[in-house]
Amino acid sequence: MERHLDQELDRIRQRLLRMGGLVEGMLAGAMQSLIDRDTTHAEAVVRADSDVDTLEKEIDEGCYSVLALQQPTAGDLRFLVAVMKMTSDLERMGDSAVNIAQAVEVLNQEPPLKPYIDLPRLAQIVGQMVRDSLDSFVQRDSTKALAVCRRDDQVDGLYKQLFRELVSFMIEDPKTVTRALHLLLVARNFERIADHATNVAEDVIYYVEGRDIRHSRAEA
Amino acid sequence: MERHLDQELDRIRQRLLRMGGLVEGMLAGAMQSLIDRDTTHAEAVVRADSDVDTLEKEIDEGCYSVLALQQPTAGDLRFLVAVMKMTSDLERMGDSAVNIAQAVEVLNQEPPLKPYIDLPRLAQIVGQMVRDSLDSFVQRDSTKALAVCRRDDQVDGLYKQLFRELVSFMIEDPKTVTRALHLLLVARNFERIADHATNVAEDVIYYVEGRDIRHSRAEA
Repeated sequence: MERHLDQELDRIRQRLLRMGGLVEGMLAGAMQSLIDRDTTHAEAVVRADSDVDTLEKEIDEGCYSVLALQQPTAGDLRFLVAVMKMTSDLERMGDSAVNIAQAVEVLNQEPPLKPYIDLPRLAQIVGQMVRDSLDSFVQRDSTKALAVCRRDDQVDGLYKQLFRELVSFMIEDPKTVTRALHLLLVARNFERIADHATNVAEDVIYYVEGRDIRHSRAEA
Repeated sequence: MERHLDQELDRIRQRLLRMGGLVEGMLAGAMQSLIDRDTTHAEAVVRADSDVDTLEKEIDEGCYSVLALQQPTAGDLRFLVAVMKMTSDLERMGDSAVNIAQAVEVLNQEPPLKPYIDLPRLAQIVGQMVRDSLDSFVQRDSTKALAVCRRDDQVDGLYKQLFRELVSFMIEDPKTVTRALHLLLVARNFERIADHATNVAEDVIYYVEGRDIRHSRAEA
């Protein structure tokens, strides 16, 4: 019985990691598409999203089935609860990557507004947060997860700076409005992905330590 | 034993409804603040958010505790899984209401950009979706829940129309950029709240019928 449960949990873990890997690839592809001005990557991002959606349903179904049939306790139960929260966050990261890819498709049809210096930096930090949140899950490392949560403020700061810059562009030259708005959309979606990575990290802390640190970062 | 479980589930249900009621109030307050140009409502919205956050943790804790101690099966298990998904969505609706309230605080400091005709309409539809999704949960009415999901396309259409209008404003008169961007932010957050109401409705369908209709609206 115990061995069967372990196998089920391991299968869920593998699927979640596959889902996480797909989302990471989507993010990288969306950003590459902006930097290289190559829309092929963006199209692949949009296509990958349905795999992410399917995995979300399969993983949730797997968790439900273990809950219903195996009556897991303590650590295993926290694992399942955490995973069901994580699938939602990963699925939304996938949606955000699609939003980014679609904005990039529009941006690539026009001359670049400015060298994209800050945006790749934002993307790089957010990509690292996503990777670290998934690593912290695999390694059951709540210290690494907490470090992810703490990086969220840096992302918010970068986003606000980009927002101000892009608004100045729009005010100074109305011809830039559409492009600036799409860059703003890209930045906004990266900022949201960072929020979701933070949620995943919080779920890891809950799973590993049994503490719910949501909405109480200062005390964490 | 059975009676104790029922009491626990009922307590969770009551708390979820209280959380939903708070979020509904926040939405109404944020919108009222924009229409009346009265910032008092907006401040109340920001304050209410911490109650929503606390309820999210309490409800999740309650669900976990029932899962751990009572080994619920079938319908009760689906109820708990659905509730734990719903708390995330309600919490994010609360965050969106705060974003709206904060944008409104900025907007109220400047002369109005245009009579807010479409935005109250969007707000009204979205508010109704939130209410109906919660009602469908109380009444275990999956037909009502499905109707909520179907209204999401209407919201997307309204949002796109508002987006185009506000972009024209910005291009024609750079002085409107900041206000138009804040109105865009308000609209965008209402659109996101509609997405979350749709998620809640999907959770209700899962709870009542045991089917997962996510990402397959066409077949639903």
